Amino acid sequence: MSENFAETALRLVSVARGLHARGWLLGTSGNLSAVLDREPLRLAITPSGADKGELETSQILFIDELCKYIDEPRVTLSNDRPVPGKPSDESPLHVAVVKARGAGAVIHTHSVWATILSDVYANEGGVEIEGYEMLKGLDGVTTHLHREWVPIIENSQDMPTLASTLNEVLVKYPSAHAFLLRRHGLYTWGRDLKEAKRHVEILEFLLEAEGRIS
Amino acid sequence: MSENFAETALRLVSVARGLHARGWLLGTSGNLSAVLDREPLRLAITPSGADKGELETSQILFIDELCKYIDEPRVTLSNDRPVPGKPSDESPLHVAVVKARGAGAVIHTHSVWATILSDVYANEGGVEIEGYEMLKGLDGVTTHLHREWVPIIENSQDMPTLASTLNEVLVKYPSAHAFLLRRHGLYTWGRDLKEAKRHVEILEFLLEAEGRIS
Amino acid sequence: MSENFAETALRLVSVARGLHARGWLLGTSGNLSAVLDREPLRLAITPSGADKGELETSQILFIDELCKYIDEPRVTLSNDRPVPGKPSDESPLHVAVVKARGAGAVIHTHSVWATILSDVYANEGGVEIEGYEMLKGLDGVTTHLHREWVPIIENSQDMPTLASTLNEVLVKYPSAHAFLLRRHGLYTWGRDLKEAKRHVEILEFLLEAEGRIS
Amino acid sequence: MSENFAETALRLVSVARGLHARGWLLGTSGNLSAVLDREPLRLAITPSGADKGELETSQILFIDELCKYIDEPRVTLSNDRPVPGKPSDESPLHVAVVKARGAGAVIHTHSVWATILSDVYANEGGVEIEGYEMLKGLDGVTTHLHREWVPIIENSQDMPTLASTLNEVLVKYPSAHAFLLRRHGLYTWGRDLKEAKRHVEILEFLLEAEGRIS
Repeated sequence: MSENFAETALRLVSVARGLHARGWLLGTSGNLSAVLDREPLRLAITPSGADKGELETSQILFIDELCKYIDEPRVTLSNDRPVPGKPSDESPLHVAVVKARGAGAVIHTHSVWATILSDVYANEGGVEIEGYEMLKGLDGVTTHLHREWVPIIENSQDMPTLASTLNEVLVKYPSAHAFLLRRHGLYTWGRDLKEAKRHVEILEFLLEAEGRIS
Repeated sequence: MSENFAETALRLVSVARGLHARGWLLGTSGNLSAVLDREPLRLAITPSGADKGELETSQILFIDELCKYIDEPRVTLSNDRPVPGKPSDESPLHVAVVKARGAGAVIHTHSVWATILSDVYANEGGVEIEGYEMLKGLDGVTTHLHREWVPIIENSQDMPTLASTLNEVLVKYPSAHAFLLRRHGLYTWGRDLKEAKRHVEILEFLLEAEGRIS
Repeated sequence: MSENFAETALRLVSVARGLHARGWLLGTSGNLSAVLDREPLRLAITPSGADKGELETSQILFIDELCKYIDEPRVTLSNDRPVPGKPSDESPLHVAVVKARGAGAVIHTHSVWATILSDVYANEGGVEIEGYEMLKGLDGVTTHLHREWVPIIENSQDMPTLASTLNEVLVKYPSAHAFLLRRHGLYTWGRDLKEAKRHVEILEFLLEAEGRIS
Repeated sequence: MSENFAETALRLVSVARGLHARGWLLGTSGNLSAVLDREPLRLAITPSGADKGELETSQILFIDELCKYIDEPRVTLSNDRPVPGKPSDESPLHVAVVKARGAGAVIHTHSVWATILSDVYANEGGVEIEGYEMLKGLDGVTTHLHREWVPIIENSQDMPTLASTLNEVLVKYPSAHAFLLRRHGLYTWGRDLKEAKRHVEILEFLLEAEGRIS
């Protein structure tokens, strides 16, 4: 698993730095994960409180399906010594998405437009996005006539409750590619980190477009 | 043709990465092409589904005037082995522009402002842009008093029909430098990739200016 | 102190260049400082009138608690010869924050949104920011339900008076993480430069979100 | 003069690329110049039609006070052979500013906000900017209470007439640091390129702030 981890860590860092540059992961906000193994579940995840613009592979951590930190030797491409850290507080949401959707990677961003729309549309329970060619970049979508419903979940600091609500939402909207936490940010995922990153770019674009016309 | 291809591929990659950085090609959206030969027509084009921010010369493909992939050896400057791929689904629109306008390069971007205006002005059939000095950067325009009409074409997944509509639009507006696909994005072109890139920058600028005052 | 200074100067330069790239320190505006010693107080600070996008470690200066320039040899990592300069005119505000809050670093940015909101909310005496997950990135904040009050101080060129008003404000709002100078910009701080930078990113994000919805 | 030219050309290229990255010189718009000699007047200036994002020192040209291209050997730092080119069409405006203000460098940008405000305030003849700390970055300004009047000149393709109108405006507003051409862009200047760049950043910031609140 170590070599696999080294490459995955490098890709997590590369994507994180790029999204920070766009202003979608400011102030240590947001987090990213990628599946290393399914049985038993092993996730590589960004640590709590890290500046994503200066993230290093040595900061990426292992967790299991209970979100517990796994203290196995981590080999990084740069041969830097692993930095001790705490997995992201929102690890349970990553694990929930991975298990419910079979996702290979999960990305959570905090953009200004996602934050605004998650509040504006909170009473409607979600943001409806329809009729954009850009939607075709979402996995399985073949026409701009597609209607994407991005559910909004009320924000909470009670992580077990939030994970439980999320599980219900993922069941209720089986074809949703993403969800918003109110006044918090966007979660999306993909079969791998590349697809998850593509989904972030598409959804952030669409939320900005919706935000500017609303 | 191989050496010509290698340089063209490098320039396509360079322009694509730059436009992705500006947020105009997010989420694998958009595509770029450049003419390699006229008789018979040979186009270098970006593949379907590529992340333009990480595009490599090895991903650039050849197509003919029927948009068929040409399986000739491709030589890349980096000596990377060509990556198998599928030409962009919108290749017929690139070929249509090249044939109708004699263009040497075609660029299709997806920006937030182009997307918004393509919907706001859809019922009027196009966006009128007039009186800006920036217009003088469009090929053949010598005064800011120029009136540019950017036709809007209803979006469709039926590519032959869309190409046919586009041909009519190109005939109807022989001096247009660009067109919009509704809620989809901008197409523009030039004698070469340099001019096509210049036209992208000018039109995206003008659409943002129009969008912010409308 | 010299080695400590060299590293601190390098970090000040790195943060300054990054914030300039985001457009938050345009036109030589803004300034940054970091504590080198507490007893007696020694601050490394950016010089007056420097282009933060081209800042060099050789331009960073020492000052004492009276904001007087200290003419001790400065060792820079690059071994460039120290460039003579004048400490930022706003040094008294940096010293005031360091003494009142025990801060290890202070950053002052000029962003468009901070400038706008500092005027819009001037009559209310401050900007109230509440209910955003992003608030949790502020030191000591553990829930998005936190209510942050960012006091607004009337701008002035009379630096002793401004420092005196600032001292009153810091006493009156002991839990504030930042303040705005009206039509001028944002001041925030942290235990170290890393935390101060995190606070800048968080507050600039929140002010932009508030600005776009107001 | 050759060595002086080489360094000046390098600085012009560096500033031009940076301003292009910010989106203020898109599509070959805008131009920059710096004085090499006063008696007789010699200006280094960007060529007509150049992509500022890919500008090379070999493209920078000499002109005299009649804006005539000077065919002297140009030495570039990179030892690239000088590229033949045509001086910017707006060279007469650069020369007018240099002579009227004694400026050492002139920068002309095309930003979205400057373009919008130059039209919105055209009937008032200029944009009044007052009360911002950022104003203190303009040469000679010592307080945010400063009132800057940025005159707006009607755009024209008749360059001699435009230069003549400009001369009247420069006489009428002897303390103006900049002017706008309607629906065209911003001109500002400084004792040297560094100051001119600082003025660009300050004025673009202020115009954006004014544009967002108006």
